[in-house]
Amino acid sequence: MIRVGLLGLGTVGSGVYSILDKHSDSLKRKVGTDLVIKKILVNTINKKRDIKLPPDVLTDNPGEVLDNPDIDLIVELIGGEEPAHQYIIRAINNGKGVVTANKLVIAKYDQEILDLAAKKAVNVSFEGSVAGGIPVIRPLKESFAANKIEKIYGILNGTTNYILTNMTRDKRNFNEVLKEAQDLGYAESDPTSDISGADAAYKITILSSIAYETIIDLKDVYIEGIEGIELEDINIADELGYVIKLLAIGKSTEKGLDIRVHPAFIPRSHPLALVNDVYNAIYLHGDAVGDVMSYGQGAGQMPTASAVVADIIQAAKGIYHKSPDINQNTNINNHEIININQVKNSFYIRLHVKDEPGVLAKITKILGDNQVSLASIIQKHRRNPVVPIVLVTHHVREEDIQNSLKELRNLDEVITVNNLIRVEDL
Amino acid sequence: MIRVGLLGLGTVGSGVYSILDKHSDSLKRKVGTDLVIKKILVNTINKKRDIKLPPDVLTDNPGEVLDNPDIDLIVELIGGEEPAHQYIIRAINNGKGVVTANKLVIAKYDQEILDLAAKKAVNVSFEGSVAGGIPVIRPLKESFAANKIEKIYGILNGTTNYILTNMTRDKRNFNEVLKEAQDLGYAESDPTSDISGADAAYKITILSSIAYETIIDLKDVYIEGIEGIELEDINIADELGYVIKLLAIGKSTEKGLDIRVHPAFIPRSHPLALVNDVYNAIYLHGDAVGDVMSYGQGAGQMPTASAVVADIIQAAKGIYHKSPDINQNTNINNHEIININQVKNSFYIRLHVKDEPGVLAKITKILGDNQVSLASIIQKHRRNPVVPIVLVTHHVREEDIQNSLKELRNLDEVITVNNLIRVEDL
Repeated sequence: MIRVGLLGLGTVGSGVYSILDKHSDSLKRKVGTDLVIKKILVNTINKKRDIKLPPDVLTDNPGEVLDNPDIDLIVELIGGEEPAHQYIIRAINNGKGVVTANKLVIAKYDQEILDLAAKKAVNVSFEGSVAGGIPVIRPLKESFAANKIEKIYGILNGTTNYILTNMTRDKRNFNEVLKEAQDLGYAESDPTSDISGADAAYKITILSSIAYETIIDLKDVYIEGIEGIELEDINIADELGYVIKLLAIGKSTEKGLDIRVHPAFIPRSHPLALVNDVYNAIYLHGDAVGDVMSYGQGAGQMPTASAVVADIIQAAKGIYHKSPDINQNTNINNHEIININQVKNSFYIRLHVKDEPGVLAKITKILGDNQVSLASIIQKHRRNPVVPIVLVTHHVREEDIQNSLKELRNLDEVITVNNLIRVEDL
Repeated sequence: MIRVGLLGLGTVGSGVYSILDKHSDSLKRKVGTDLVIKKILVNTINKKRDIKLPPDVLTDNPGEVLDNPDIDLIVELIGGEEPAHQYIIRAINNGKGVVTANKLVIAKYDQEILDLAAKKAVNVSFEGSVAGGIPVIRPLKESFAANKIEKIYGILNGTTNYILTNMTRDKRNFNEVLKEAQDLGYAESDPTSDISGADAAYKITILSSIAYETIIDLKDVYIEGIEGIELEDINIADELGYVIKLLAIGKSTEKGLDIRVHPAFIPRSHPLALVNDVYNAIYLHGDAVGDVMSYGQGAGQMPTASAVVADIIQAAKGIYHKSPDINQNTNINNHEIININQVKNSFYIRLHVKDEPGVLAKITKILGDNQVSLASIIQKHRRNPVVPIVLVTHHVREEDIQNSLKELRNLDEVITVNNLIRVEDL
């Protein structure tokens, strides 16, 4: 018998409980022995719950789970940074395996956690921390183990993808769709972590650190959210044959790793352009396997529970057969993270300028002086005295673009620089 | 050190050799010890080869590999039924783990092979046998282990997908595109196994037997190829909002398993409709995870080698840590396979009839008498004296459709029944 201690009985925790309950026979066969939930840590024991629980399984005392010698495996589903992080450390120190879906803790403390797990010879798994039910962490470690991974592109946040999809489809603006997403439960009442790109950044940090076998400091990851995307940008992207997605990128380049999260123009013909609503996808390129994409529900109770229970099965098998799959030290390569300023991209720039002669000449001179060459200039219908202008650049350095923008903003003829969006031709 | 014996040094074998050679450091780290290719079985030792091999590694004597006590793991990449099947059995009997990419042998002999492997406590892996580099067998066994799988739809044969894609895109006919595919090396000089659906049938048999934990007899799988697809069918599909794909289906229904391979109309908006050229994809639905799709190169030297080496790494880890992952007995459920005659589908029927009054009345009477109700009737431009007619039915039993067709063919007014294609609304 493998005895499981559950930390948290919220949405995902209840989903995990119900799968273990409903599929207990098939899980027993897969593990080789019974999986039993011994204790569940909750905030409030006497709360009305939708699921039926055996008596005495609930506790509000962390020690009864974490320090319990009758528990083999801890499943952390509290979320957030603390106390989740400390609970995971305490469980490992007690020689217990850990399964978690906590992207923040894994992105931030992977080195500490995995080093300790290796020392204590226990397994820590976290498939549920990235892209919900889509298998991605195990495939990266196992199925693509024969490959040198070269690029990862992910749509890793369902909330922002829902918002961008609906802005695009229904020609509605950001605030309106965000409000609707909140009403439908697709966005939290405080949606900052999703909207700002932070959530996607945790996930691409986790994926990149596995794919490139290195420790990545979240502080080195460039993060930009979707707050600034206007309907006008989406419409122009459409005219140019693109869609706007919040893209999480993890590329291996000669100069180091290029890890970033930001909205991007991607070609409408690319498979990622068709990943809509709350769906997530991971597109990667390996030197042997070529291009591979996985697509599915990136969040939600049952998809995430599916990933967590898959981890529980593997971890329980390892414990039962006394051969836990000890996590590899992920810090094999000391990859440098390239500063965004040094990254080259093609850019879309949208400006409002005064309807005066010589404006374009002044703008193009500033760009030229900063080594920014243009692929196209589109002058949209003038709305006297304002003329909207859209510029698309060739591949140029971020720093050169940012310097250009500073100068453009100082130009009398430029009323506003409305937006700057990177164009990824994938 | 884990000592590998390779059977076959063709396209995939050379790919596997080159990955093991090129990434030896990273593989050593992943396995925990060196992976060494000890012997390679080939037909002709003294043949000019593109890869550099150590002296004495080649042999044309199967016993030097299969019965060699210095070899831990056999990698079978000969392909075909015999002697591959007998070699695998001999290797297992000698207590060696086996990695193979042989879909025919696994589809046909899985019960014998897996039972023997369980008895001998060795691991047999075959990720490379289905969908090349796309991880699908390991995810089915591990990542989706918490799910009851309800449906699998696959585009599992690159050759037929290339042909259908190019017929659709360039409005060319079957023979022309097949010839081109052969010239480009995407189709074999004898393309029967691909074109007839047999190759896809091996693969869906393997996937379904894992997903539904049962043994499936290939003879029970309904198989229909793409030889009969005419450009006219593709054009009409397009008009109706569909594309034609060779679909491999494995569904769990109340009456049993519905396993079949045939061309199908699928809605243009479905993600599978966008899987083009030699790409493969697997779309599945699990009760927890919902819809998930994986997409990538389903064949070719390096994608298949990527899958084979992933299996080698896992198998080698298991041998090194003395905990081989013993294959589960897949024959847990004794699922019945539903005969195609009992399966309900929507159908597309294309006829040429005489330009005479009362023809449609006679046709619809025959259909009505056989419980076949129609969703739409399209009369195409007449080409006197021939009138092309397209019928699309509601969900009806295969047997009723087949009986209707027999009667239609006997009708004087029906010149030809040109095609019958199932419509899958997925």
